[in-house]
Amino acid sequence: MKKICAIADFLSEDNKKKMADTARACGYEIAFYENTGEARGRVSDCEIIYSGGDVSILDEMPELKWCHTAFAGIGAYVLSGVFDSGKVLLTNSSGAYGRTISEHIIMVTLMLMRQMYEYNKVIGARCWVQDLPLRSIEGSGIAVIGTGDIGRNAAKRFRALGARSVTGFSRSGRPAESFDEVYRFDEFDRLFSDPVFAGGIDVLLLCIPGTPESRGLLSRDRIAMLSDRTFIVNVGRGMVIDQDALLEALREKRIAGAALDVVYPEPLPEDHPLWDAPNCIITPHISGDMGLPHTVDMTVDFFCEDLENYAAGRRLRHLADVDRGY
Amino acid sequence: MKKICAIADFLSEDNKKKMADTARACGYEIAFYENTGEARGRVSDCEIIYSGGDVSILDEMPELKWCHTAFAGIGAYVLSGVFDSGKVLLTNSSGAYGRTISEHIIMVTLMLMRQMYEYNKVIGARCWVQDLPLRSIEGSGIAVIGTGDIGRNAAKRFRALGARSVTGFSRSGRPAESFDEVYRFDEFDRLFSDPVFAGGIDVLLLCIPGTPESRGLLSRDRIAMLSDRTFIVNVGRGMVIDQDALLEALREKRIAGAALDVVYPEPLPEDHPLWDAPNCIITPHISGDMGLPHTVDMTVDFFCEDLENYAAGRRLRHLADVDRGY
Repeated sequence: MKKICAIADFLSEDNKKKMADTARACGYEIAFYENTGEARGRVSDCEIIYSGGDVSILDEMPELKWCHTAFAGIGAYVLSGVFDSGKVLLTNSSGAYGRTISEHIIMVTLMLMRQMYEYNKVIGARCWVQDLPLRSIEGSGIAVIGTGDIGRNAAKRFRALGARSVTGFSRSGRPAESFDEVYRFDEFDRLFSDPVFAGGIDVLLLCIPGTPESRGLLSRDRIAMLSDRTFIVNVGRGMVIDQDALLEALREKRIAGAALDVVYPEPLPEDHPLWDAPNCIITPHISGDMGLPHTVDMTVDFFCEDLENYAAGRRLRHLADVDRGY
Repeated sequence: MKKICAIADFLSEDNKKKMADTARACGYEIAFYENTGEARGRVSDCEIIYSGGDVSILDEMPELKWCHTAFAGIGAYVLSGVFDSGKVLLTNSSGAYGRTISEHIIMVTLMLMRQMYEYNKVIGARCWVQDLPLRSIEGSGIAVIGTGDIGRNAAKRFRALGARSVTGFSRSGRPAESFDEVYRFDEFDRLFSDPVFAGGIDVLLLCIPGTPESRGLLSRDRIAMLSDRTFIVNVGRGMVIDQDALLEALREKRIAGAALDVVYPEPLPEDHPLWDAPNCIITPHISGDMGLPHTVDMTVDFFCEDLENYAAGRRLRHLADVDRGY
């Protein structure tokens, strides 16, 4: 019987049952491992893997024809070289993270606007301080870099909470749901060089994958174009921002603040100066982790859907673009 | 010339200009004081006061005919006795707080659902921990005690963020915008005694004023009816909850957690056990403070609107009900 392995520590019994049932119906048997260590030496005959993120096992899988990753980012998979020849298919779980990441985005945006980084100190000291200056999502101008699943989910929620405008930036500049306007990335400089436009942006949200193309997209020069009213929220990849320039802008109050769920390196070293940057909320890459069962359920749905496609010889629906890197 | 005093430290120059212009047009002159100390001995001839919360000055105002408070809660005003005879009018700023308090509610609900009270410890220790179990507003069942301005604003936002259901409770049980259903307070026990109903409530939000009637509304018995899935969020008045029973329920994990912006007493003493309750976010009564300029602007709009009504001999629009206490 043809074999599948699933290596992940976040699958529920319901998830495993659905995967096992689908595998059986497709003529496969599936084995579950909590981690790579458990799987070593046991998966060399597997044709398919549901991967929980550790790519090191892929080298031990000469029979591998298809890898589905539970994550949206495929950076580590691309770097592994396994997919270079194009003989092994790679699908990802882009689309599973819209709900959890966009709720994180709304939470940290409100924490920035309502000075929770200051109030947390007040609360920690069991003091009673009030009336710090606050701002609101209602009436705010939002700019979103990246109009994929996460960007659209965030845009929808910002709009629903009464944002004044939601402007998108993407590679194509194609209109996208919940955005007032979508511009091409290369129009960023033209728009933000207008102080009226830049001054109307309360939140600049980055939700693009880490690729050679996106590296340093929010460069020192672009950070310098932002208004001191603007909060930066990054849930994409740390390398998308020039982190040294961001740290300087925070220290000099040239931007209003930042919420960074992604940084470099990760984990951020204990003595890294970003931890002490003013008006900055750092979270340990949790916006799109596996904490929300809905996310895991969706990755399993995607895998099972494409397992049926695979077994039937149809094109897989969740194919990643290895060349583009997402 | 007839006189008005405004005693508040949160008015902007724009606010003062609008008030002064309106006063002049109505045949009044207005004097501004930052605080009661500054006003003492100078306001005995004033007919009208825009009050920033300190009621002690009212005793020094024998000419007073109308007091507008910048706050929604009127407890201290009622207790002052000044309004007992009905000869002095009292208006309040109910309606000015919907935006700021409902954004606070969304923020703390997400902080509860996404375990930010735990992640804040992780971040404080500069650690890198992930995958704590999370929940989402999308798909959740919300119950709201109080369907006034704040309750309706919160309901609108929960719905907009994809809540599965938003159920209201009010004195009248009358239908209200953004609620699927509204029940009378006295139907609470019947509904929550059904474990299916109680188990479907992810968030129980309290946003009712503190009155003799609302004191202890969320009693020990009612807390015992809640599911261990339910988060309690209180932005009304601390006395609405039996705080000792709440503390026990938190300690015994009989409820999922709580976000309390109002407690008793306030400030909460440094050695109060509630500070150490598990899964509990305490904020120092900031959900509806004057930090958001929009809030202050609205209180000024209400005052100016009613100043025109007052000068023209029309009924005031923002009259508070001294007997009911809100």
